[in-house]
Amino acid sequence: MRQASLVALAGATLFMASPASAQPAPQAPAHSTSRTPQEEENKRLVMEFYDAALNKKDFEAASRYLGDKYIQHNPTAADGPEGLRGFVDFLRKDFPQAQNEIKYAYADGDFVILHVHSVRVPGTLGRAIVDIFRLENGKVVEHWDVIQDITDPADARNTNGMF
Amino acid sequence: MRQASLVALAGATLFMASPASAQPAPQAPAHSTSRTPQEEENKRLVMEFYDAALNKKDFEAASRYLGDKYIQHNPTAADGPEGLRGFVDFLRKDFPQAQNEIKYAYADGDFVILHVHSVRVPGTLGRAIVDIFRLENGKVVEHWDVIQDITDPADARNTNGMF
Repeated sequence: MRQASLVALAGATLFMASPASAQPAPQAPAHSTSRTPQEEENKRLVMEFYDAALNKKDFEAASRYLGDKYIQHNPTAADGPEGLRGFVDFLRKDFPQAQNEIKYAYADGDFVILHVHSVRVPGTLGRAIVDIFRLENGKVVEHWDVIQDITDPADARNTNGMF
Repeated sequence: MRQASLVALAGATLFMASPASAQPAPQAPAHSTSRTPQEEENKRLVMEFYDAALNKKDFEAASRYLGDKYIQHNPTAADGPEGLRGFVDFLRKDFPQAQNEIKYAYADGDFVILHVHSVRVPGTLGRAIVDIFRLENGKVVEHWDVIQDITDPADARNTNGMF
């Protein structure tokens, strides 16, 4: 099993003020990795971006990580940076307590992949999400996701959980 | 956009007989990558395993890629290699024409991530899936996935599609 469960990031400002602490020990992968410095940087940037947009629900903070485009593949969201603004506004209004916990983050070249447990209403089982981001020149420019409701673990055919 | 759309693998035997052709030109990522030889090998193995299990629906062929365990996180599947056998049998019986097209494959350390368009019944929109596999010593030992039905593109708020 993956031994490194990532807690939600404490804050983008923390990371920006103190780059050395951007990857505290609990985030260190237990498996072998050979990420380049650029891949590690991409992963760090995407996790900060994600926390700003989805947990802090702060579009202005999140927008600093965006390039001049944001190609959106989630069919429920409008394209472009303004589409992200609309989504963040929707979260802030309809699901102010929504929290997305990054369970694991992968990096491969220009792509960062997040495996996420999303809970929009506290106390509910929430959803499993994989978010895929593409970067260009250190900026997030494209996003895909796949989302699945988490069902009662008592009904599952194995005891391993979805993460 | 990702410019490399992977067609379903032609056949595991092809890859095994001709390792040099394991990554034909259409699979070459358009983005920069820095995968190690081991990561490239993991990606190749997982794509062969996936094709054997999901497209050929040949458990015996697929099982050659498995380690001594197969930790299953999909809640609808039983744990272990026998759980995979049951799932392949289910596909063969209930969805004999099901095809899973790997749109993109990522590798990071011991993990391989597949972004897949799955169509169980020809002519239907199918589902978007992200499958995550973990390897140990060149064998597949753990699996997570997230699955979402694809809805009518006419209802989408952008024109980019889910892939």
